[in-house]
Amino acid sequence: MAKKKLNIGLVGGGFMGRTHSNAFRQVSRFFDNEYEPVLKAVATRSAKRAADFASNWGYDSSESDWRRLLERKDIDLIDIASPNDTHAEIAIAAAQAGKMVMCEKPLGRSASEAERMVAAVEAANVPNMVWYNYRRVPAITLIKQMLDVGRLGRIFHYRAKFLQDWTISADVPQGGTGTWRLDANIAGSGVTGDLLAHCIDTALWLNGAIDSVTAATETFIKQRQHAHSGKVEEVKIDDASAFLARFENGSLATFEATRYARGHKALYTLEINGERGSVAWDLHDLHRLAYFDHGEDGQLRGWRSIHITDGDHPYMDRWWVPGLQIGYEHSFIHQVADFLSSLAGEQPAAPTFRDALQTDYVTDAVLASAKSGRWEAVKG
Amino acid sequence: MAKKKLNIGLVGGGFMGRTHSNAFRQVSRFFDNEYEPVLKAVATRSAKRAADFASNWGYDSSESDWRRLLERKDIDLIDIASPNDTHAEIAIAAAQAGKMVMCEKPLGRSASEAERMVAAVEAANVPNMVWYNYRRVPAITLIKQMLDVGRLGRIFHYRAKFLQDWTISADVPQGGTGTWRLDANIAGSGVTGDLLAHCIDTALWLNGAIDSVTAATETFIKQRQHAHSGKVEEVKIDDASAFLARFENGSLATFEATRYARGHKALYTLEINGERGSVAWDLHDLHRLAYFDHGEDGQLRGWRSIHITDGDHPYMDRWWVPGLQIGYEHSFIHQVADFLSSLAGEQPAAPTFRDALQTDYVTDAVLASAKSGRWEAVKG
Amino acid sequence: MAKKKLNIGLVGGGFMGRTHSNAFRQVSRFFDNEYEPVLKAVATRSAKRAADFASNWGYDSSESDWRRLLERKDIDLIDIASPNDTHAEIAIAAAQAGKMVMCEKPLGRSASEAERMVAAVEAANVPNMVWYNYRRVPAITLIKQMLDVGRLGRIFHYRAKFLQDWTISADVPQGGTGTWRLDANIAGSGVTGDLLAHCIDTALWLNGAIDSVTAATETFIKQRQHAHSGKVEEVKIDDASAFLARFENGSLATFEATRYARGHKALYTLEINGERGSVAWDLHDLHRLAYFDHGEDGQLRGWRSIHITDGDHPYMDRWWVPGLQIGYEHSFIHQVADFLSSLAGEQPAAPTFRDALQTDYVTDAVLASAKSGRWEAVKG
Amino acid sequence: MAKKKLNIGLVGGGFMGRTHSNAFRQVSRFFDNEYEPVLKAVATRSAKRAADFASNWGYDSSESDWRRLLERKDIDLIDIASPNDTHAEIAIAAAQAGKMVMCEKPLGRSASEAERMVAAVEAANVPNMVWYNYRRVPAITLIKQMLDVGRLGRIFHYRAKFLQDWTISADVPQGGTGTWRLDANIAGSGVTGDLLAHCIDTALWLNGAIDSVTAATETFIKQRQHAHSGKVEEVKIDDASAFLARFENGSLATFEATRYARGHKALYTLEINGERGSVAWDLHDLHRLAYFDHGEDGQLRGWRSIHITDGDHPYMDRWWVPGLQIGYEHSFIHQVADFLSSLAGEQPAAPTFRDALQTDYVTDAVLASAKSGRWEAVKG
Repeated sequence: MAKKKLNIGLVGGGFMGRTHSNAFRQVSRFFDNEYEPVLKAVATRSAKRAADFASNWGYDSSESDWRRLLERKDIDLIDIASPNDTHAEIAIAAAQAGKMVMCEKPLGRSASEAERMVAAVEAANVPNMVWYNYRRVPAITLIKQMLDVGRLGRIFHYRAKFLQDWTISADVPQGGTGTWRLDANIAGSGVTGDLLAHCIDTALWLNGAIDSVTAATETFIKQRQHAHSGKVEEVKIDDASAFLARFENGSLATFEATRYARGHKALYTLEINGERGSVAWDLHDLHRLAYFDHGEDGQLRGWRSIHITDGDHPYMDRWWVPGLQIGYEHSFIHQVADFLSSLAGEQPAAPTFRDALQTDYVTDAVLASAKSGRWEAVKG
Repeated sequence: MAKKKLNIGLVGGGFMGRTHSNAFRQVSRFFDNEYEPVLKAVATRSAKRAADFASNWGYDSSESDWRRLLERKDIDLIDIASPNDTHAEIAIAAAQAGKMVMCEKPLGRSASEAERMVAAVEAANVPNMVWYNYRRVPAITLIKQMLDVGRLGRIFHYRAKFLQDWTISADVPQGGTGTWRLDANIAGSGVTGDLLAHCIDTALWLNGAIDSVTAATETFIKQRQHAHSGKVEEVKIDDASAFLARFENGSLATFEATRYARGHKALYTLEINGERGSVAWDLHDLHRLAYFDHGEDGQLRGWRSIHITDGDHPYMDRWWVPGLQIGYEHSFIHQVADFLSSLAGEQPAAPTFRDALQTDYVTDAVLASAKSGRWEAVKG
Repeated sequence: MAKKKLNIGLVGGGFMGRTHSNAFRQVSRFFDNEYEPVLKAVATRSAKRAADFASNWGYDSSESDWRRLLERKDIDLIDIASPNDTHAEIAIAAAQAGKMVMCEKPLGRSASEAERMVAAVEAANVPNMVWYNYRRVPAITLIKQMLDVGRLGRIFHYRAKFLQDWTISADVPQGGTGTWRLDANIAGSGVTGDLLAHCIDTALWLNGAIDSVTAATETFIKQRQHAHSGKVEEVKIDDASAFLARFENGSLATFEATRYARGHKALYTLEINGERGSVAWDLHDLHRLAYFDHGEDGQLRGWRSIHITDGDHPYMDRWWVPGLQIGYEHSFIHQVADFLSSLAGEQPAAPTFRDALQTDYVTDAVLASAKSGRWEAVKG
Repeated sequence: MAKKKLNIGLVGGGFMGRTHSNAFRQVSRFFDNEYEPVLKAVATRSAKRAADFASNWGYDSSESDWRRLLERKDIDLIDIASPNDTHAEIAIAAAQAGKMVMCEKPLGRSASEAERMVAAVEAANVPNMVWYNYRRVPAITLIKQMLDVGRLGRIFHYRAKFLQDWTISADVPQGGTGTWRLDANIAGSGVTGDLLAHCIDTALWLNGAIDSVTAATETFIKQRQHAHSGKVEEVKIDDASAFLARFENGSLATFEATRYARGHKALYTLEINGERGSVAWDLHDLHRLAYFDHGEDGQLRGWRSIHITDGDHPYMDRWWVPGLQIGYEHSFIHQVADFLSSLAGEQPAAPTFRDALQTDYVTDAVLASAKSGRWEAVKG
């Protein structure tokens, strides 16, 4: 049966442009959906880079201005993979142009920016989704399923960290192509919006709403050269950010992110402790899930390491055979698969813009608390 | 610059047909080569299955007889991903038809079959390669580089296992689509040719030639129903196979493979102990390498777990950013990348048919020793 | 050469009475010191229990009132291993009686109690020490040595947790023999003084002073039966306690302790991230130290697991041979060995009462912040 | 209740003399037995070393000739902790003198030597035991209990290794105090009798009798200086030894020991694969047991790491509280506890001399096969 085409217009040709493009290309080889993404066009500021990117990934065409994508009738969906400071403008315009919109995380640089984006897609009534890809790591999806059936019982603790070490050198500039994440104007915030946002999205999904937070942020290296101007300027982002949180369900949580944890490349870890059991996971071995089941025979109780490569694990019936692991990129493929399913169904694929706005409410509260020195309530 | 096309004709649409097809599709998105594979045609015995497979993977056409692929002018390379009993006939015919040939491992069901295949590709002077994909797991490629510069010094021990548990149930039949590996006529042998062959190929590459072996094989379940006939018949493959080996370099080795190791899905492990250090790796966490460097400060010496996701690790500059792991399928992509490079260069991509024949000599010696109860010299 | 006798009078015959007694008995078998502890007398409230304890451990005599120990001329040192609410009275009286004093942690139920204890031992000028035994786990002593020579460089992050799960059941009473730790009158606080105190003592030793904290505590089970009266009463201790901290050296820290982390029995973990490297350790595998050295060759960099069983590791030349691990009890033996050394030397064995008072200042600030909802400065 | 005294006469004051002495001293502090060991006398060849050892460990007296111990009425039990070449003479004489006998492993340097020892203790009808201490590591005892109730079902595979790296340097001499294990006259064999003997004893206990073996041994460094004479002489022990085995229960096994595995200090590992589950253990983390239970819910199945520190684990109710690990030395204490129990009971404590003789039959077969190049049947 011929599949329906879903014509993609991608904005941005960096790291995230690559992960999204790969997901669009791969999804129909491994998943059965009514819709099939077609790589129609890519836009980046440089016409040359756009053309090269299109050639490499098999896009039919390229543009040097994302506005052109909105004008084109042959584009169904705008996928935003450009830096944070462009998200709102593009997303709102795309929605107004009647396009479906996917947006890389975080949704906005602040909740107020994100609120306008939510309003736009809801006013236009277009399908929309934010790329919080870790929800689709099979181990994390499995945690969600376990929680939904009550396997852990009442939850006491949630614990998440995202540790990196790539900005420790004072020689790393701010504001360049690979380093715009150090520029507060572009990124909005430092690790709070970049790394903690991932931790928070997963936490909200798995453990429900956060009531209030108390936080601390730190900028270890106070000045850096700007990649373009060469000027030494104050660093305005947070290099590290930690907070305590109280969830609506009564559980107590700790969150932490930093780019100054030597030896950790992208170590997103999470752990949940419930009355009946606990789970733990980390991104450096994303194909494994640690699970402690208190219901086991006491003498033989222990933390299990579940190798998430079997056919009965989420998404895994689509890949290889037991024992053979998938990697990082697959979480994006799964997200596209779910989005395509949602087009044929009644439920939108989560997280929608509205879902992702909740994360921005939390990061806003974290940054506010870091300034006020007090507990801050989370809006929402 | 436009790439040169390399038109692929695939034989077989099973598990390996999928991994190969994915590799052909993905390689040019991530690697720069003069040549680009084009999915031209696939052949399986069932025309329906061939057509479906072609549709799913984007092959231009499909055939129900692999001989048709050999006749077609628009096919440059025959890729053999069908069961072991078909390898020799197809490979020899393809070479005689002047096609390049890639063949899934093991090369032949026996060394004598493999010798005829080597003769054919060498007589035809066509590029050829066998899919011992684990050489291209970045961690294993890195071991090879470490050994080549003498990081481990004189080698004392080599140790490899490949443990699975999928045939423990007496209800698993022999001879069907997913279970032809239990049929000695099709597979040639059991775990010796299936799993030990992988261990041996890697070992020969990393540690050089094997002189002699003493082996034991076991068939735990003596009779199984045939998937097609329904008849209960004697099981003629080896369920488990273990051997001791002496390498030419003086090191002593143990090898073991089984499908009866409960809890292990595809646990290929290897360890090498040298005078200056040791390395260890396993397939269940293929993105990690364990390394012990005896040269470190004694008090702080320990086994390191290297997370093989950095840009200076083999092949990894082509993928994502540090900390983000790749999976099983990527080893096939790397192998195609190297094959494409070799077409533009002077060195064939290893393992060639001739290289892979050495593995068949070892597995022949293992099976012979299991019968004779004596040490058997390895031919070659 | 005959050793000088150090006559011990122990107060308390519970869990800690056993670990201390074992340490006194074992130390001279493995360590060379001028002094040798002699198990002279033990006092517990029950004469029967005291006599049984004395018989089991080889104490010469027993008493049912600790005051008797103070009167005895043949006792040099009073070792306090009784519940927290008895520490101050006994320690002060012992000092006033001119005895050396060792005290189980935490020093006081509050800093004000501890301040009086410090004043007493300093006025009496008697040797004194608090049993923060984890400083003498060889892996932790090694971390201290690494930090002292600058192996980690500037410190960015400190991270510690102490996770248990033994009070999750609502059936656990408060106030009994094994459960006095749930009674705020006896224990002073919950996990803050019990578990966090350990984390804090180690942190102050390794990473210097803490400036300020923001904290949250939680009591998950609000009411429990009293073990003696049988009455259901409000639970006044903290079941869980977490805080963020800023150290004087500019590093940012997270601390957490709980008795509601299912699957963790006594999981004290700590991690330190510095510019040049990181270390991590946990109590469930106390004989291992994880170390990341950024100075290593980039391609082969990784976290090392150092098996702390070699002769050049702290204290380990006194035990067995490489590869053979010691356990929990040995940290107490090491502490006694260091105390005995200090008697023959000029430096007191740390932590003295004064050192340990600093930990009470931090726990006071944690409990105050949990009430005030604000950052609290740490006294000291 | 006063305990009965069991007067110990120890022969040998080296590493094993220390572990045994510690066990005799500690056992009555932690275990309730009718009998209590009393450290009566120690004998070593040097009167000075004997006196020092006695002083350190609290032996009442010392001797420079073990024969003196046999003559003494106040000695009930002769414990042999001297090098292998002394075992037979002392044990036989001790039995003939009517003493109970404990002997460090291996029992004899060969099975014929061991047979004479068995004959002697059985003729004298004296309690006897061999120090295969690893049976009393709680994790291994637990494996035995699991197997006894059929938790693993039919056994397919047994796998054991004992890896060290302390003799890699050519500068290590043979024949000295710490290096008699490299002298074939004293030790009998190399790693076969030293390390494989441990693996074999455990295997026979857990998995039953071994039918036949095929083996390979290797001596990597062919000549070493003698520690006393200074002469460079041929090394006659085996540096490495590996064998395949068939057990009576139909399982297939691999065994390996070496002192040339860089990075491994004393890594004794074992794994058993059965139809219903698998277990794995290693000496470097002896307080953990890995267990895979195939009966678990498929989706959540995984290898558990059981932290063997709970009161319901073998021997652990005698030690500390959950989470707090014990170490190497405790296995000896447990063995003494069981021996003391056996004196009050009807069953001898295993392994008796007769039990341990079975291990010598296997090591004899291993060494014979290494010479003959053929499978050798195991006597017994």
